[in-house]
Amino acid sequence: MKGRLDLGVRPSHERGMSTATLTIDLAALAANWKRLDAMNNCETAAVVKADGYGLGAVQVADALARAGARRFFVAVAEEGVALRCALGPWPQINVFSGHMAGDTALIRDFALTPMLNSIDQMLRHVEALPGHSFGIQLDSGMNRLGMEPAEWDALRDIALEQRPALIMSHLACSDEPDHAMNAQQLRSFREMTDGIETTRSLSATGGILLGRDYHFDLCRPGIGLYGGFPFSDANPVVTLDLPVIQIRDVLPGETVGYGNSWTATRPTRLATVSAGYADGLIRGMGPNLHLWAGHLRCPVVGRISMDLITVDVTDLDDAPDALSILCREQGVDEVAAAAGTIGYEVLTNLGGGRFNRVYKR
Amino acid sequence: MKGRLDLGVRPSHERGMSTATLTIDLAALAANWKRLDAMNNCETAAVVKADGYGLGAVQVADALARAGARRFFVAVAEEGVALRCALGPWPQINVFSGHMAGDTALIRDFALTPMLNSIDQMLRHVEALPGHSFGIQLDSGMNRLGMEPAEWDALRDIALEQRPALIMSHLACSDEPDHAMNAQQLRSFREMTDGIETTRSLSATGGILLGRDYHFDLCRPGIGLYGGFPFSDANPVVTLDLPVIQIRDVLPGETVGYGNSWTATRPTRLATVSAGYADGLIRGMGPNLHLWAGHLRCPVVGRISMDLITVDVTDLDDAPDALSILCREQGVDEVAAAAGTIGYEVLTNLGGGRFNRVYKR
Repeated sequence: MKGRLDLGVRPSHERGMSTATLTIDLAALAANWKRLDAMNNCETAAVVKADGYGLGAVQVADALARAGARRFFVAVAEEGVALRCALGPWPQINVFSGHMAGDTALIRDFALTPMLNSIDQMLRHVEALPGHSFGIQLDSGMNRLGMEPAEWDALRDIALEQRPALIMSHLACSDEPDHAMNAQQLRSFREMTDGIETTRSLSATGGILLGRDYHFDLCRPGIGLYGGFPFSDANPVVTLDLPVIQIRDVLPGETVGYGNSWTATRPTRLATVSAGYADGLIRGMGPNLHLWAGHLRCPVVGRISMDLITVDVTDLDDAPDALSILCREQGVDEVAAAAGTIGYEVLTNLGGGRFNRVYKR
Repeated sequence: MKGRLDLGVRPSHERGMSTATLTIDLAALAANWKRLDAMNNCETAAVVKADGYGLGAVQVADALARAGARRFFVAVAEEGVALRCALGPWPQINVFSGHMAGDTALIRDFALTPMLNSIDQMLRHVEALPGHSFGIQLDSGMNRLGMEPAEWDALRDIALEQRPALIMSHLACSDEPDHAMNAQQLRSFREMTDGIETTRSLSATGGILLGRDYHFDLCRPGIGLYGGFPFSDANPVVTLDLPVIQIRDVLPGETVGYGNSWTATRPTRLATVSAGYADGLIRGMGPNLHLWAGHLRCPVVGRISMDLITVDVTDLDDAPDALSILCREQGVDEVAAAAGTIGYEVLTNLGGGRFNRVYKR
């Protein structure tokens, strides 16, 4: 056994080539924010929950702050702490889960703005941190988070006396512009908030695309920043290249992978790449998925396994060193379709992957 | 905006209550290893790739080393580095992806044992690190990783002169004891290795359960350690409790969640819990999933969203503070079935979650 074990830390130039490379284009991300910002006449914030949709909340928020974003949204207080430490004291950091029991010290020490969801949370907040910044989350029909109209009626005057930083609600069907729910939620939100002078916010990416009626004082895009549907014209933000570990040739009749789930019907050249469902590449998309060698697509064969994917590269002229799963030819929404899910899940799943992350600025 | 932002680090007792708690029972894990070890007459290693199947490779390997494991398997060199730093110089750490271009320094400095998959890798290894520990991975029919029989024929004498630490292959269908592929791969492995004095390994968890013929000199369980199928008698290792953010009552006809995908048919009490697909809880399992309040099961309603899940708790006497997704009543395989996948993916997906991790020893 050889020495130098006391090294402890691996110099960055010594990265192995068996891990995949996730490239995150922060310039494209910032351009997406600017284009969404240009679609409205109000303030544009940014949603960076779930570690910036899997791409790194700190790097994403830093790039968006440079582009002009001044308010950020996260899901839970812990995410807000990480963001505050990275961004410094100025941006407003809003927490969708509100003020939960046990969150008080974090909200106070890291200057977080909880979006209060209930009378209970309102009482907890005002009692524990009188005068501390907060927002109000109303339920306009999604029945997931936020105060009900009746609850809000009872609380409204008291809440407004405390001068909330923001009053918001969230649309359930904004990805479908023609869905009747959109107008219904707009009406409900207006009934609950018209005449109030506080900053109002109803729309994320989908709502921005629905038009000015939905914009109010602040929009808060999420998925559109990261290049996903429903912002169809978004710049792609992520590229994911998977290194080839091994190339082999199999004969017709030979099987591949767990459960012998694929059988060669012609002399076939296979590439085994180093990535799998443990890297967030959804196991169920196997039979519908292609990887790409430049402009050429290569079908995945056999089941996606924990650390490995096998690909038919027979039609390529040369054995590839790497194959791409996210690239110009195939974005997060196409990969999502192969798994029967949405681009959001493909993105957030990348967060746990064993990737060499490269940020382009 | 209040002070103390220079604190920078959050004391551990200040954890908020809006994050879920993932409890990992290391004593149960160690007991699973011992029971699998007792089923064979050979050495029992442990597979801790993919960050210990999502549960924390360092904590898992430490517990298994205390139980008696002396060899560990990881997928890529980077995982081996983390393990070496945690475990110290003694255990053998084997890397399934072998010796990739760029891995040489890691393999040397962190005393890793690459499982060479091809003649190319063999040449690279012997040239770059003559005398350094290595193993051989053979393909006995899965066509994913390892040398083909013909390749092995050509290389065998040269390879054995270099005194490999281990010769191994992997079964494609060991979860199905009656599958003809098992005997076929056993025959192929024997043909390639009978008469060789090197330590031989064919079986992971499934192969251990197939019986002594499959055990050779070393077994290397993975999924069984973590409590998953096909080791049906395994001790459950993980518990996952999701905090309730909000309780609300809805009337018949009211809809819930994105796309209005669920409609109440009775007066319904809903709990919104803080966890979603960004925490690795697969979006597609929504319609088939239940959460548990002790022994009582509560159906998930509406779509699983990025950070939130909505649950019908009408039949509970009291409003719950938390609901469980992994518990005595519902293990990783039951959750996997709700998503149409396997327990392995449920486990590895936990690795990226925003959880408060508690290790029970």
